[in-house]
Amino acid sequence: MIDRLMNKIDNCENPTVVGLDPAYEIIPETIRQSMIEKYGQTSRAAGKMIYSFNKKIIKGIYDLVPAVKLQIAMYEKYGIEGLRAYLKTALYAKKKGLIVIGDIKRGDISSTAEAYAAHISGVTIEETHLDLWNEDAVTLNPYMGFDGIEPFIAPCNEYDKGLFILVKTSNPSGAEIQDLIADGKPVYEHVADLVSRWGELSMGSRGYSKIGAVVGATYKEQGTALRKSMPHTFFLVPGYGAQGAGGSDLKGYFDKDGRGCIVNSSRGIIAAYKKDARYGDHNFADAAREAVIKMKLDLGESI
Amino acid sequence: MIDRLMNKIDNCENPTVVGLDPAYEIIPETIRQSMIEKYGQTSRAAGKMIYSFNKKIIKGIYDLVPAVKLQIAMYEKYGIEGLRAYLKTALYAKKKGLIVIGDIKRGDISSTAEAYAAHISGVTIEETHLDLWNEDAVTLNPYMGFDGIEPFIAPCNEYDKGLFILVKTSNPSGAEIQDLIADGKPVYEHVADLVSRWGELSMGSRGYSKIGAVVGATYKEQGTALRKSMPHTFFLVPGYGAQGAGGSDLKGYFDKDGRGCIVNSSRGIIAAYKKDARYGDHNFADAAREAVIKMKLDLGESI
Repeated sequence: MIDRLMNKIDNCENPTVVGLDPAYEIIPETIRQSMIEKYGQTSRAAGKMIYSFNKKIIKGIYDLVPAVKLQIAMYEKYGIEGLRAYLKTALYAKKKGLIVIGDIKRGDISSTAEAYAAHISGVTIEETHLDLWNEDAVTLNPYMGFDGIEPFIAPCNEYDKGLFILVKTSNPSGAEIQDLIADGKPVYEHVADLVSRWGELSMGSRGYSKIGAVVGATYKEQGTALRKSMPHTFFLVPGYGAQGAGGSDLKGYFDKDGRGCIVNSSRGIIAAYKKDARYGDHNFADAAREAVIKMKLDLGESI
Repeated sequence: MIDRLMNKIDNCENPTVVGLDPAYEIIPETIRQSMIEKYGQTSRAAGKMIYSFNKKIIKGIYDLVPAVKLQIAMYEKYGIEGLRAYLKTALYAKKKGLIVIGDIKRGDISSTAEAYAAHISGVTIEETHLDLWNEDAVTLNPYMGFDGIEPFIAPCNEYDKGLFILVKTSNPSGAEIQDLIADGKPVYEHVADLVSRWGELSMGSRGYSKIGAVVGATYKEQGTALRKSMPHTFFLVPGYGAQGAGGSDLKGYFDKDGRGCIVNSSRGIIAAYKKDARYGDHNFADAAREAVIKMKLDLGESI
């Protein structure tokens, strides 16, 4: 996964990940209304509108970016029908050649972690092996330590998948736990050490591990320091755009060759049509495309 | 939720929660084979066998326990069809008068946490409000601090739901992060302080908050100390039985009135038929019932 991701970033000359987090209010009124007319005020209508929206966004951006990130909460919100839209979106993105990151932030232990690992390992029913989730990589929560991560490592190696483990999140209150000082350094640095160590169990061939880290764009100094202390750990960086960070904040997140991270933007891309009078319901995908191009240029100046 | 839960515990005189974590190998061969014959080696067959198994277990135990806990990973493993079994199980348990705890351990920020909160708040599509998940309470991960918890608090109050937030987990490697010493005490105690404080935002009427904590049975001393430092926080206690802890280890987890916690057992109950020659595929629910009665007696001695 990590080699494929890095190759795709090189080919696109763009480390942007488009976050497909289609909150209800982001979906254009025309799509919403047409699905409500067809399916009523049901979760089925919600699932249908989400997939219809995502498909158009993907068509608009698939040749410009290496990957999409699907925030599963936005789909899980609508139950089975929402998750059906998640799976269909992942499959469609894959067909369009995109790497699919499932932003699932799961974290549990032993047999439970093994069950969650089905996201990347697939599942075997008697003699039949099925890949039900279509993700190339998933995000994980480290609070339970290695027990929660270990079951994902074999699938990373066997099926060429990847992980991004939360280290330093982009939100203000993340500090409540992550910035507690233990043995002279913050908790997130301890987590960073663990993630680096775990990463050795699943190295790619281009200097980076298949086990990456989530490092928020909103903490520039910490991100820069982590880049230095985690030279083989690829970063998935949330918090660009809507959460306040810009390309110039991210210089230190890249390595000396301009590699080592992908930067996610969700709302800034998929809701771009709402902030520009030239765009509307009928051409929201064009607005997303323009936002990706702008972001590529903005990030390009930092690399 | 917390008042309802406490009343039900009093009525059953039993703080046992049955963990419905139907791993494939736990489901009796006869159920597996009959579903494979009908639906092939598909995720649909897996979903059907899980629900069939759960339904019989619930019938066997519903009058003896206050609640069931569904480990969502065991269902998510089988994609949409697995999650369909999750929803159907939750609904059936509810119909049988049981409190349903969704062991989802979600954790994310702002609009994402809001989306996950649909598990307990339901979801509104135009003018229609739907409760798609049927859970009375869910478990959450605290790594992102209050941002990840806040969106769940209003639904706790508005819809009388509950939370159990990870504080000290039952697995060995949980210590890697949770036991780091910061400002003279371990990280999990800092988390405990936060959970206590958040709990004040959603108090029940019987002295306990709707915002509870997950405290593993496998760390007796720590659990006992947490009981004292968190007098208004109800505990959900995993790790009994299969993970090694017995009733006598849990004395300190209860308050002076013998209240303040529910103790989960999954495998020890639902797979009890595999460890007793008197039971087999045809009467696994009877074995579960007997295991619940044994556990009630074992816990009774500690209260």
